[in-house]
Amino acid sequence: MNLSGTYDSDNIFAKILRGEMPCVKIYEDEDVLSFMDMFPQSRGHTLVIPKQASRNLLDADADVLATLIRHTQTIARAVAAGLKPDGLILTQFNGTAAGQTVFHLHFHIIPRYADMNMGRHSSGRMADMSDLKDLAEHIKEHL
Amino acid sequence: MNLSGTYDSDNIFAKILRGEMPCVKIYEDEDVLSFMDMFPQSRGHTLVIPKQASRNLLDADADVLATLIRHTQTIARAVAAGLKPDGLILTQFNGTAAGQTVFHLHFHIIPRYADMNMGRHSSGRMADMSDLKDLAEHIKEHL
Repeated sequence: MNLSGTYDSDNIFAKILRGEMPCVKIYEDEDVLSFMDMFPQSRGHTLVIPKQASRNLLDADADVLATLIRHTQTIARAVAAGLKPDGLILTQFNGTAAGQTVFHLHFHIIPRYADMNMGRHSSGRMADMSDLKDLAEHIKEHL
Repeated sequence: MNLSGTYDSDNIFAKILRGEMPCVKIYEDEDVLSFMDMFPQSRGHTLVIPKQASRNLLDADADVLATLIRHTQTIARAVAAGLKPDGLILTQFNGTAAGQTVFHLHFHIIPRYADMNMGRHSSGRMADMSDLKDLAEHIKEHL
């Protein structure tokens, strides 16, 4: 998929937003949803998405983006407080060539631990649901 | 360096902001500065930083962060229009363990090209200045 294109409302995050697919939720309000990545690159890999449809950074509404980053900061702080990583990577992919696999704008918050390597993006290894729920509880305590 | 700590005003981006170090500038206003990464991971690797001091995503002022992402979107669109990459990665590192090397908040805009591998972060290979100036001109045409 190219950088530009039409939003496909059958993408997996659109389905999660409509409640057609489950997620391990961290936070939700009228603007954003945050949940655990099902294919985590590290312990506590969290996603934050806007409710408004856009494919990526380029076609997003600027106000939606500003609101999204404010919430992303709040959630990143909770991930840091709840899981005590040594570092955090914030990343956002635009286009297949950049590694984007779901074409609904999303920020990845990826905790980094000094003694653990980071997994590959979309490695195909699904996380254990009870582990994700446990991690989500640690994060939510700090929201 | 840990996730938390005191802002060190001797970091290289603070020096660039004070005009004590040169940069190949893309954009500047009262809130932000954007310039070419001197150690680019790909052709057109661009940085966007706030003028207000903060170490990372966690200690940044939320309004500063919201303004920063708005400008980052504008500049990412100009990078896309000017350099026609196949994709774009937006990334932001927090803490040494996450790969942060300069402790002033910054977003990386990293163009991705289907036929080129991406270099390593802070690889130590400095770009040719005239190449960077040429790339900057292509980007600035679209701002």
